[in-house]
Amino acid sequence: MTQSLFPAPGAAHDQERGAVLSPKFDADGLIAAIAVHADTAEVLMLAWMNAEALQLTLATGEAHYFSRSRQALWRKGETSGQLQTVVEVRVDCDQDAVLLKVRPQGDGGACHVGFRSCFYRVVEAGGLVERP
Amino acid sequence: MTQSLFPAPGAAHDQERGAVLSPKFDADGLIAAIAVHADTAEVLMLAWMNAEALQLTLATGEAHYFSRSRQALWRKGETSGQLQTVVEVRVDCDQDAVLLKVRPQGDGGACHVGFRSCFYRVVEAGGLVERP
Repeated sequence: MTQSLFPAPGAAHDQERGAVLSPKFDADGLIAAIAVHADTAEVLMLAWMNAEALQLTLATGEAHYFSRSRQALWRKGETSGQLQTVVEVRVDCDQDAVLLKVRPQGDGGACHVGFRSCFYRVVEAGGLVERP
Repeated sequence: MTQSLFPAPGAAHDQERGAVLSPKFDADGLIAAIAVHADTAEVLMLAWMNAEALQLTLATGEAHYFSRSRQALWRKGETSGQLQTVVEVRVDCDQDAVLLKVRPQGDGGACHVGFRSCFYRVVEAGGLVERP
């Protein structure tokens, strides 16, 4: 159980105002992680971390995620070169989400489709329009 | 089944480059939704939507989520006054995450703890420091 890398979540007040990092992983042992660009604040991607990925991210300063499709630890950019240097890590009020401020390396992108951000499409009139 | 409000997800290329909004809900019928401030780009919160919440958000221009703790549709701000006027809705490459650009109403906040954003704490030296 990699969840034991962190203390178990506490009572609501401790989760919300305490100084202890006690992330609340879901039934699959995962927590949602948002990556934003440290300089532009653009939202780059939403991915998932298990406890090991979060621990490695904090220890190395490089973003690590957990690939749900591959069911494996995923050092972002290991094959694409789009490594993410972590500038800041935040957690939300109940500690069931993580926010990373990162600087993407390589070509500066974060999305496997080729766009800078994964959120390159806007919903308009019920359909999708690419507007990177 | 509210998921039938949207077409079922298609093949990878259609999900990624197509013009059809076909969100990929998880086994619980939910999709992650990031809300950022439309003017400052600050990440305000991460929440969840079922198909009905997404459909209502698109139809009304007010953010609706699904509360996992209450297992109920949640019109953001209904009790707090922190309604979220939606300026733009985006989806990510495989359409399993939604990005909302919103203007919070009421006191301008988004977090029940009293901060503007739910991400008011930074991880530092393994602990948490409040830095709204």
